[in-house]
Amino acid sequence: MSIVVVGTIGYDTIDTTHGGVSEALGGSASFFALAARFFAPVSIVAAVGSDFREEHWRLFRERSIDLRGMAQIEGPTFRWHGRYHEDMNVRDTVSLALNVFEGFKPDLLPDQQRADYVFLSNISPELQLHVLSQVASPKLVAADTMNHWIENARPALLKLLPRVDILTLNDEEARMLTGEANLIRAGRAILKLGPKTVLVKRGEYGVLKFGGDSMFATPAWPLEEVIDPTGAGDTFAGALMGWLARTGRLTESILRTGIVYGSVLASFTVEKFAVERLATLAWEDIEERYRAFIELTDSHHSRWMSQ
Amino acid sequence: MSIVVVGTIGYDTIDTTHGGVSEALGGSASFFALAARFFAPVSIVAAVGSDFREEHWRLFRERSIDLRGMAQIEGPTFRWHGRYHEDMNVRDTVSLALNVFEGFKPDLLPDQQRADYVFLSNISPELQLHVLSQVASPKLVAADTMNHWIENARPALLKLLPRVDILTLNDEEARMLTGEANLIRAGRAILKLGPKTVLVKRGEYGVLKFGGDSMFATPAWPLEEVIDPTGAGDTFAGALMGWLARTGRLTESILRTGIVYGSVLASFTVEKFAVERLATLAWEDIEERYRAFIELTDSHHSRWMSQ
Repeated sequence: MSIVVVGTIGYDTIDTTHGGVSEALGGSASFFALAARFFAPVSIVAAVGSDFREEHWRLFRERSIDLRGMAQIEGPTFRWHGRYHEDMNVRDTVSLALNVFEGFKPDLLPDQQRADYVFLSNISPELQLHVLSQVASPKLVAADTMNHWIENARPALLKLLPRVDILTLNDEEARMLTGEANLIRAGRAILKLGPKTVLVKRGEYGVLKFGGDSMFATPAWPLEEVIDPTGAGDTFAGALMGWLARTGRLTESILRTGIVYGSVLASFTVEKFAVERLATLAWEDIEERYRAFIELTDSHHSRWMSQ
Repeated sequence: MSIVVVGTIGYDTIDTTHGGVSEALGGSASFFALAARFFAPVSIVAAVGSDFREEHWRLFRERSIDLRGMAQIEGPTFRWHGRYHEDMNVRDTVSLALNVFEGFKPDLLPDQQRADYVFLSNISPELQLHVLSQVASPKLVAADTMNHWIENARPALLKLLPRVDILTLNDEEARMLTGEANLIRAGRAILKLGPKTVLVKRGEYGVLKFGGDSMFATPAWPLEEVIDPTGAGDTFAGALMGWLARTGRLTESILRTGIVYGSVLASFTVEKFAVERLATLAWEDIEERYRAFIELTDSHHSRWMSQ
């Protein structure tokens, strides 16, 4: 089954203490789609400017990503300039220009309106609601949010949450949304706001799942070096949604496998700048790390002993 | 098979933002023994003063902990006064008095010298070496250390490490010992210093195992409230060593199960002040949380689906 994602596509300039990139393809919809496409067909809803480069149209197209919902508007594409600290969990936004994304209010294509799987990436809750209202009867809706919307668009966010099956956010955002310092209490408090499942992303410490049949905790894939954390969360969501769309069902076991695939794909994304690693990733790379991830986290080590 | 533990037994005064205790039974050997005894016989090597209270002799004795190696010396018992911040990962030592533990150089009993399982808790590397040199042919030696010894007794610590099968330390200490900011590199670098297995304790984020057949990562049991983190690390080591002594073997699978038991017991310890929770814990409590822990971390959720 196919997935519709709404989000940004833009050009990122990223500085770290060990180097950087300038005007690299980025944006939530880019990372999401480049991860999800390994599992299921994905259709993007986004806006790019007249400066959006042919090589990037091609990059998506060659990976069978549906771009019919990508509006090309006169003017410059969305741009973000971020700077990571030595501790890569901390970053500053040097500059942000919405450009053609400002005021973007998409009308979904007829087949997008019939989508089963919808991902509302980290854009304003108003825009998330605008897109969701056009989807006739989605089977599963997931959304991401961030501190900016929690602080400045709380009423719209609270209106969205009861319509969301899976909400993803990071640990700080979970605390901010609920006012609970303890993350376990925060996760449970968010469930009361409406989402059936809450996935709290803890960066190098992995993911906590609240809701569903039971709680699930999984570590992140251990990396000796993180080059660029940008897009890890959207990559995670892309692989997770891709897996859910591919299986077409939502059992506890399928959800957990999706979280592991999400963690695996995200671990590739951060190995290089921007979408560089995602763009060259092969299915064999994913399967190999998936198996290693299961071994890494298997408390009994039993699957491997019996082989 | 039985375990010998050398460490402190003392009286702790603990302040937190939500209350505290005064002159409560504590010390690394106390937590270790009260956890290990659920799995295997444990024998303590420690010194207490003339003020050590009868109720605490009884507390150990009623739990079949061997106290023949516990010297009672004229003078006051070891005392520690700690203060936790709002963020309970941070604590200050208000005061520390070694008292009768100062200059303690134990001679092991003949049967302790024949011990198979030895735990050298967080005392000076010189004292750890002094005890270890008396054990004829230990099957498995584990040791804990801390920032103080890494900074002030590095040569002795480096002498100890090649003789250690399992080293436990926390993430900050792993970074300090190796000078590696990345925890994965730090863990691997410690293996080169001698220990066959390194267990990095990450508090609420769980444990990372380096060495052995493969890497293992497990989260901590999610708690809505942490009352007092004191002794969590020694409790972890106690349950782990207890499990290893009980099984008498060291396969990857047995080691992982021991790490989970360690995490489970530690999660009980932090639920109340000092040894309060450990002292009232029943085997049924452990088994119940162990099963829930396996479910929490099972990527496939398969064990539960097939039941």
